[in-house]
Amino acid sequence: MAVRDAHPLLESWRDVPAVDHHCHPLRRWPFELTAVELRSAFTEAIDPAMAEQHVTQTAAYQGALPRIAAELNCDPSEAAILGHRNAADPASYARQLLGRTTTGVMLVDQGFASGDCFTLEEQQRATGIPQREIIRLETLAETLVNDSSEPRAWFAAVRGALQASIKRGAVGVKTICAYRASLKLRPVDTDALGVAFSALRLRVEHSQPVRLAGNALCHALLFEAAQACRELDVPLQVHCGFGDPDEDLAETSPLGLRPLFIDPAYRGLRVALLHCYPYHREAAYLCSVFPGVYMDLSLTIPFAGLEGFRAMRETLGLCPTSKLLYASDATRYPEVYLVAAMLHREALAEALGELRDRAIISRAAAVDAGRQVLAENARRLYRLPNGPAG
Amino acid sequence: MAVRDAHPLLESWRDVPAVDHHCHPLRRWPFELTAVELRSAFTEAIDPAMAEQHVTQTAAYQGALPRIAAELNCDPSEAAILGHRNAADPASYARQLLGRTTTGVMLVDQGFASGDCFTLEEQQRATGIPQREIIRLETLAETLVNDSSEPRAWFAAVRGALQASIKRGAVGVKTICAYRASLKLRPVDTDALGVAFSALRLRVEHSQPVRLAGNALCHALLFEAAQACRELDVPLQVHCGFGDPDEDLAETSPLGLRPLFIDPAYRGLRVALLHCYPYHREAAYLCSVFPGVYMDLSLTIPFAGLEGFRAMRETLGLCPTSKLLYASDATRYPEVYLVAAMLHREALAEALGELRDRAIISRAAAVDAGRQVLAENARRLYRLPNGPAG
Amino acid sequence: MAVRDAHPLLESWRDVPAVDHHCHPLRRWPFELTAVELRSAFTEAIDPAMAEQHVTQTAAYQGALPRIAAELNCDPSEAAILGHRNAADPASYARQLLGRTTTGVMLVDQGFASGDCFTLEEQQRATGIPQREIIRLETLAETLVNDSSEPRAWFAAVRGALQASIKRGAVGVKTICAYRASLKLRPVDTDALGVAFSALRLRVEHSQPVRLAGNALCHALLFEAAQACRELDVPLQVHCGFGDPDEDLAETSPLGLRPLFIDPAYRGLRVALLHCYPYHREAAYLCSVFPGVYMDLSLTIPFAGLEGFRAMRETLGLCPTSKLLYASDATRYPEVYLVAAMLHREALAEALGELRDRAIISRAAAVDAGRQVLAENARRLYRLPNGPAG
Repeated sequence: MAVRDAHPLLESWRDVPAVDHHCHPLRRWPFELTAVELRSAFTEAIDPAMAEQHVTQTAAYQGALPRIAAELNCDPSEAAILGHRNAADPASYARQLLGRTTTGVMLVDQGFASGDCFTLEEQQRATGIPQREIIRLETLAETLVNDSSEPRAWFAAVRGALQASIKRGAVGVKTICAYRASLKLRPVDTDALGVAFSALRLRVEHSQPVRLAGNALCHALLFEAAQACRELDVPLQVHCGFGDPDEDLAETSPLGLRPLFIDPAYRGLRVALLHCYPYHREAAYLCSVFPGVYMDLSLTIPFAGLEGFRAMRETLGLCPTSKLLYASDATRYPEVYLVAAMLHREALAEALGELRDRAIISRAAAVDAGRQVLAENARRLYRLPNGPAG
Repeated sequence: MAVRDAHPLLESWRDVPAVDHHCHPLRRWPFELTAVELRSAFTEAIDPAMAEQHVTQTAAYQGALPRIAAELNCDPSEAAILGHRNAADPASYARQLLGRTTTGVMLVDQGFASGDCFTLEEQQRATGIPQREIIRLETLAETLVNDSSEPRAWFAAVRGALQASIKRGAVGVKTICAYRASLKLRPVDTDALGVAFSALRLRVEHSQPVRLAGNALCHALLFEAAQACRELDVPLQVHCGFGDPDEDLAETSPLGLRPLFIDPAYRGLRVALLHCYPYHREAAYLCSVFPGVYMDLSLTIPFAGLEGFRAMRETLGLCPTSKLLYASDATRYPEVYLVAAMLHREALAEALGELRDRAIISRAAAVDAGRQVLAENARRLYRLPNGPAG
Repeated sequence: MAVRDAHPLLESWRDVPAVDHHCHPLRRWPFELTAVELRSAFTEAIDPAMAEQHVTQTAAYQGALPRIAAELNCDPSEAAILGHRNAADPASYARQLLGRTTTGVMLVDQGFASGDCFTLEEQQRATGIPQREIIRLETLAETLVNDSSEPRAWFAAVRGALQASIKRGAVGVKTICAYRASLKLRPVDTDALGVAFSALRLRVEHSQPVRLAGNALCHALLFEAAQACRELDVPLQVHCGFGDPDEDLAETSPLGLRPLFIDPAYRGLRVALLHCYPYHREAAYLCSVFPGVYMDLSLTIPFAGLEGFRAMRETLGLCPTSKLLYASDATRYPEVYLVAAMLHREALAEALGELRDRAIISRAAAVDAGRQVLAENARRLYRLPNGPAG
């Protein structure tokens, strides 16, 4: 395949250590990576039939292989890559690939990390990249049902736990409401909330697993968390759009979050919309009219082939470059962080490059906008100190 | 006008006989084609004012004329085309144009064919192209109301008729629920179903025409048909998105079909989403996470100008090339089959060519993906034998 | 920055005086324009924090500055532009910039004009461009609550006032229902309408400000106005999609207007969908199937960077060029009219140019389509006489 020339803007960002404001822990090594595991890392499908039969026929996976292979200096085939990576020393291998992402600090959601993943401390040691915690709201709230006799007590416990986590260094809160309920937020129905919470309590009393779900519980919790984030001066990350099939994509438009943007109770709240595709035009609109709204395209970039590049261009229609954030949303395998980071910088270079080629922005403005998106916006949004410690 | 060079990928698919998995019967010749009839064949409008005043001002129609004219070797004007085609022998004319589509087999929905159209046997003889039947669910179900005293009996009759049709050679079932109800599928309300069915029966008893409509009847029927398709091992085609103004486009997103994809009752069901525009990004998402979901862009290609080409590129963001299907959705006039087939191959060549030019897939992978889309995916999906008999 | 060559189609429309079918009054001069005011003119944001911190980081504003600067022959910086424009004679300055828009007639909605804006007569004198009135429905209806004891009387008063305005020279009616209610039109609930109207009356009796809002009042009023427009033979403009944050974008798709298109009560009604983004594909679909539906992209063009250009291309997929309308939606400052007009012609040139480059339409057809969009469609739609008086 033809090698494409690197976009000239990329060179100007070569030394910009990115803030990956939304990613997940690595799998604890050593382990032997299988083909199905690698494929599963480049799709939102859960059904193994997708990894077995279809992922190899996607632009995302086909495009990822040569990029990984170029780094490993091997054939761009799945087998060659697996052979090389499984033969390598896992620690230096991870350091090599993560080093190529030029990441200055990682803001990590450990929410769906299973026991086989690194803790933040381990990950910082293993990668040499500073790690900061993003608290996953629903996971935290599920652990506090047991101690709360009724919803108000539960919300108080959640707020207390959020405050404590932030005091210990967490820099933001993330909600996966989209996986548990509709994102079309509705006023809390106190009766329905009471009933739903009682049912949850009953499960706790019978030692059954607790899983928050449904609009009554999830919306009430989200509204509480939004107030807490405002008071604690940390952003609320909201998963929107594109995700695994546990969510109903029809219910995940960020437009449904409107109460958070217009209700004076949340005035000053900062919200980061994650993923957004195929609602990125809507997300960009929200960024263009509400000062506290930010967005990223994270998952869209490594998982959607050239659609990631198109989504970036479309986003820069309405979204100010001061509102767009860089994120890999990568998890488990160094390969994903590498591909996500490379594609993200390229998509950004092409979208800003187009604005520059069309004489809409100057070259200096394009370079500056890229620095904002890769690092400065997130540093401001999450109140991160400058410098290597993140 | 400048003649554009053919895309190099087209040549590599020149000998691939396509499976047109979704089209309609030809009008029985001889007949004299009028300008309004030709225009009406390139729009979803029903109101004759559109064909009279506006269709000539669309990219679709303006782009179709020179393609037809090139085949007829005449001026690219409506008058010249009509003159030439009406002077030609209709049988050889149809063979010539359909021959240019390189179609190996046509899967035909006769659902809205009026008496002036060919039967499948006649069409096979007339065109020399093997024909297979797709059963139109609602049309079939309407004929069975008379024999059924209540909904369960009606559903049993529908299942029996589907089984019999498939035994006789039909290869799939198509639902036009989008024209009769919302595609946002909801659990069946047994009471509402009973009431609606009684009203339908009453019309039969008074010898009034029967037309299925409304969520209660249409959703219940669709759920039954989905189970039948699963058991009979045939795909269920679902009209989504873009269609004539009898449908409310707001209610036709394929995301509304979610119950079919997540309810274990339908596990193993294969679904082909038809048209999809402007919900093709959503359809591609469904194809990327659910193994049984396939899609086409059919009508979007000949009716939407360059949007058909864009929709193809956008679709290949998330949709595996093993899930995308070729279809003309053509009906009545050989000109439509010709234009749809040419544009479809070109749109595919450009979208895959872009992935190849961007070094995301290899040339071999692009060629292979085109063969999948044009024929192999449909052969697998519909369990069609290889070879000329389709 | 590189200067881009003008698109060759632009030259062929140089002498076409456009019908700006949807714009607003200029601010009465003299005044000193501030940076925040200029920025606020290129965003739909209301919160001043957007103009203070983010608008300078948008493609829209960054792209507008060099265009204004080129006209003023000054540095493309905000400060230089403000310095030059504030030092200029306001009347000749406005004449210069508006003259560059090549506008033949302006159809003006004075609905949100505050006391500091020109009347139509003043504006016609000040600019030398003929002005015609578009009646803002909700604003008019609010003034008539006082004289009406119940909804039917109110509707009769609205119809009477519309008729009188049109007799005095108004050429259309505009509804901003999207700012006051959902655009998903529902059948009028007479009881809810009665209750809502009583509440409105009560405010009048207590001399409180009256503001129409909610589905009951707004939908009923819109249905009445639609019938009145049909009878009075004037188009109904409907704000759809993109607007300021007073509206919930999720509720503003033009697909919600379906009752106006299919109910025989409105047969013959002409509707102009305004803005439409991000629902422009849906709007184009409506234009492709319903003879009475027209659309524009107005605000999308100056406010959405290259998305305006993309929206234009996407629109020309389904929308006949006989259905697309030119509009600036500009307000208050001559700079906005200038930028909107320049970008609109360029977007049109590129979209039609692409169709021409792809050999879908001829050069003559592209030139003709541009004339239609810039002027002829609106002249036909609004029954404007030809010639300079508009």
